[in-house]
Amino acid sequence: MKLAGVRLPGDDIVHLARLDGDTVQIVTDVTRFWTDARGWTARAAELTGEALPVGQVTFAPPVPPSARVICVGLNYRAHAAEGSFEVPEYPTLFGRWTASLSVGDVPVPVPTGEAGLDWEGEVAAYVAEPLSDADPAAAQTAVLGYSTFNDLTARRAQKLTSQWTLGKNADRSGPMGPIVTADEVGDLRDGLRVRTRVNGTVVQDGNTRDMIFGVGDVLALVSRTFTLNPGDVIATGTPAGVGYVRTPPWLLQPGDVVEVEIDRLGTLRTPIAGRDRQADPR
Amino acid sequence: MKLAGVRLPGDDIVHLARLDGDTVQIVTDVTRFWTDARGWTARAAELTGEALPVGQVTFAPPVPPSARVICVGLNYRAHAAEGSFEVPEYPTLFGRWTASLSVGDVPVPVPTGEAGLDWEGEVAAYVAEPLSDADPAAAQTAVLGYSTFNDLTARRAQKLTSQWTLGKNADRSGPMGPIVTADEVGDLRDGLRVRTRVNGTVVQDGNTRDMIFGVGDVLALVSRTFTLNPGDVIATGTPAGVGYVRTPPWLLQPGDVVEVEIDRLGTLRTPIAGRDRQADPR
Repeated sequence: MKLAGVRLPGDDIVHLARLDGDTVQIVTDVTRFWTDARGWTARAAELTGEALPVGQVTFAPPVPPSARVICVGLNYRAHAAEGSFEVPEYPTLFGRWTASLSVGDVPVPVPTGEAGLDWEGEVAAYVAEPLSDADPAAAQTAVLGYSTFNDLTARRAQKLTSQWTLGKNADRSGPMGPIVTADEVGDLRDGLRVRTRVNGTVVQDGNTRDMIFGVGDVLALVSRTFTLNPGDVIATGTPAGVGYVRTPPWLLQPGDVVEVEIDRLGTLRTPIAGRDRQADPR
Repeated sequence: MKLAGVRLPGDDIVHLARLDGDTVQIVTDVTRFWTDARGWTARAAELTGEALPVGQVTFAPPVPPSARVICVGLNYRAHAAEGSFEVPEYPTLFGRWTASLSVGDVPVPVPTGEAGLDWEGEVAAYVAEPLSDADPAAAQTAVLGYSTFNDLTARRAQKLTSQWTLGKNADRSGPMGPIVTADEVGDLRDGLRVRTRVNGTVVQDGNTRDMIFGVGDVLALVSRTFTLNPGDVIATGTPAGVGYVRTPPWLLQPGDVVEVEIDRLGTLRTPIAGRDRQADPR
């Protein structure tokens, strides 16, 4: 089953909806959904109500405003190597605020002072249950599902100082696809192919079986320091092939279209816009 | 004027309230407040309704769940030096999620695997207006007010990798005091004394006139990469005197009480608890 965040016309509330091809059925509002993600997911599977054409809704990130998006840097050996980083002993974690999130087909502006935006196609995992001092196996079973994600990066801002936070939170720079429930995805270690294309040209072609730290490992580690809440997200890291390390560097420009295609999760399409789009309503 | 977040008995909604000594008057709910922070602040100044004793409410962070808490590391030369860091050319920015925030007098647990928590007393600044590509002077005038803040840090988790995010987001580890409106605070460059005490012993004694990057500078820099929203917070960095660099290291233990006292902003008191408090309701 696929679950997406949607807004109805004239309404500012984000709802979780079951997505079936070209129609959606509303489940409940996003905040209530995550208070009982397992229960609402079961109810979503049994919905027999009115199906709305997707053209009648606006998609939105399927997480509450308080969600933490915990991103794993350097989680593929070839990607660590291309950036001249050592393979780390622990997952390198940085954060996105929900204010940086977006969805597919929404234009993402190149921020002021950046030569472009860099792509980072990856899998995002959604936490269904509170986790505190969890072990990796228990943490893995707390995952509701997965989506496509593009960790679009403002490299200049990212590299200004030792901390990457600024460059990882540009406006609308974190598009996420619909959640596909875990039963339809299986184990990431069995391998989902992750491809990123820029204007149709493949620039990343990796596989989740090459991840250094699995989702359960990352969640278990995090849960020793803070309690994970339902709706929190782990962005699992990008494989090799990003743009800034190329010779010459290749960064996304206004007018470009970047797509992230992942086995079983679908394709996430993002047009890049100029800075003048920055102040547009979402 | 002082503004605080409060919950009424039996209600989960956080309201902004005007705080006058031992009483509060409700202004509006926290999300609505930040959609027009200037207007609601003006209305708060003219309130003549019922004043509730503070004992009848529960205090809560005065920001919406979507707020970004942008923390400036290494913003005092003596603090950079005590940690053997170079004085940076740009502000070193890392993030807290609102899920890590708390208020005064709430026990903060030492996370699993930590030898204790470290103190970082500092000033927090609250953004009243959207800011995109702002200059430092305009950004400074967008500040609604300031509060005390303790950036309580899980040093083991902070130092696991190059990115500090994990160790800066422990449960309830970001207590913030009430907002004091900017008209009652003046210019941080004129100097507010910042003192931190552990069980009554002064461990930090700094002054905001020694900040390397001012609030307007930081906001201007950030606003080039992402649009600041009303309710976003800048934690302006801590002066010298933190615990982990001492010989031997000095970290907060269950039973300790840490206080941050700042001129014009008041005193923020935080008891430290054991890990078994982690799962308590807030």
